[in-house]
Amino acid sequence: MTGDHRGAATRPGSPGLSRLSLNQETVRQWSLDELTAGCAAAGVPGVGLWRDPVRSYGVDRAASLVRAAGLRVTSLCRGGFFTAVDPAERARALDDNRAAIDEAATLGTDTLVLVSGGLPAGDRDLVGARERVADALAELAPYAAERAVRLAVEPLHPMYAADRCVVSTLAQALDLAERFPVEQVGVVVDTYHLWWDDTVGDQLARAGDRIAAFQLADWVTPLPEGVLLGRGQLGDGSVDFRWFAERVAAAGYRGPVEVEIFNPALWARDGTEVLAEVVSRYQEVCAVPG
Amino acid sequence: MTGDHRGAATRPGSPGLSRLSLNQETVRQWSLDELTAGCAAAGVPGVGLWRDPVRSYGVDRAASLVRAAGLRVTSLCRGGFFTAVDPAERARALDDNRAAIDEAATLGTDTLVLVSGGLPAGDRDLVGARERVADALAELAPYAAERAVRLAVEPLHPMYAADRCVVSTLAQALDLAERFPVEQVGVVVDTYHLWWDDTVGDQLARAGDRIAAFQLADWVTPLPEGVLLGRGQLGDGSVDFRWFAERVAAAGYRGPVEVEIFNPALWARDGTEVLAEVVSRYQEVCAVPG
Repeated sequence: MTGDHRGAATRPGSPGLSRLSLNQETVRQWSLDELTAGCAAAGVPGVGLWRDPVRSYGVDRAASLVRAAGLRVTSLCRGGFFTAVDPAERARALDDNRAAIDEAATLGTDTLVLVSGGLPAGDRDLVGARERVADALAELAPYAAERAVRLAVEPLHPMYAADRCVVSTLAQALDLAERFPVEQVGVVVDTYHLWWDDTVGDQLARAGDRIAAFQLADWVTPLPEGVLLGRGQLGDGSVDFRWFAERVAAAGYRGPVEVEIFNPALWARDGTEVLAEVVSRYQEVCAVPG
Repeated sequence: MTGDHRGAATRPGSPGLSRLSLNQETVRQWSLDELTAGCAAAGVPGVGLWRDPVRSYGVDRAASLVRAAGLRVTSLCRGGFFTAVDPAERARALDDNRAAIDEAATLGTDTLVLVSGGLPAGDRDLVGARERVADALAELAPYAAERAVRLAVEPLHPMYAADRCVVSTLAQALDLAERFPVEQVGVVVDTYHLWWDDTVGDQLARAGDRIAAFQLADWVTPLPEGVLLGRGQLGDGSVDFRWFAERVAAAGYRGPVEVEIFNPALWARDGTEVLAEVVSRYQEVCAVPG
């Protein structure tokens, strides 16, 4: 995988941006055509894509579009939601994740981001739910590996533990990932989810080659209702991005740095302007060496 | 302090409720007169009070009211907000906390709950902020001890780390508390803040005599804007209360069990009805031996 990353780093015409990737949900107002054209024009070599818009566009067609623009897909968001107890529901989730792996392979990305899923209704057993995540990883990892796709377990902020993701810390994500070969299962380091945790420095050192993706968003308050769409533009909040970038680099990660901000205030603006702001903030708060 | 707790446990006429305390913010619609009358009538022997309503009522007068109703004050909420860098602001915070300690002593409670404070505006240094909390504890602990008041450091859910409390886990709270004599600084175990953390079982065992208060609220979603007033009635959400009660008991805690639910839906109802529901849910999900 580092080969791909070095490839991206040699892209000409984008000094300081060779590792930057724009996750498409940051500019939800943009179509895939606008996204690829916009990133190419701005010298941003990577895009992080989401399954729904890619499927609407057509997976093969999206893959061609990104390639034709001279870009690469740095990650596909997202598979996961593995915590159902009902066997039929579990089988459906696994099928859907195999489809997500196929889509990632078609898009040419080696990284499928996984959000584990929350507690089933009425269930209070976090430990059991995390074990079902491990079971699902065991079923999917070989299938993904055959397609050169790595499963990237994303710990989400503890405020999502009940309804979205029972994996809340980098330590928990690593506890899961380390049950599998390093090339098959990694972890996502997203500053928005992990910034508050005083153990995250040690866990980043522990993570080493397990780091499959590095995503940036800032923490701003007050949180909106439902707490999903309140991420901040880089530099607007509490996250010390340089601290994270240094530790992720010290762990050996040389891959893409993906900006993923869900915020209706950004979606209401001109996409080109938002991307320009992302680029300038990225350079300001945490530009990482190519 | 265990002497006090045993005293409460022998209160007659309230089988199974001898350790139950109602935090007044659970029934914000009630005046202090209504609160004390309501708890006495329901056989709930303890009340957790907040500084603002107590000061409006008069601290001495509130202390007499609670005593006359045959109740005890299990905790005073709250002191803290120690993270300012500005010396004048820090001095004001310390003065205010000395006043809170005096109020706790007047009310006859041995427990002052402390919420540490968030990051100062524009500050991203969580480690530094936590050190300023430790410095404040060092200044206040002897003053509190002279008045038989114990400082109870409350870890708040990580979603409050930026704007309210840089102490996010029980481990962090214990790291702070353990710098001081056990009788001077303890920790608050609140299920709402800690339920998601897979290290909390080990930390409860570590806590032992440091547990100064045990508070209950359930975790329900979706979270409301600002995430302050979305706590759930016991049994309505994801918290395994019995799991907590057993581990808190195993750690040696025999003190009050305080129900503290901030939720406008409860405030809109008849207080007597809310208290009856709290009592019945408490007995259902986690009644602890007297």
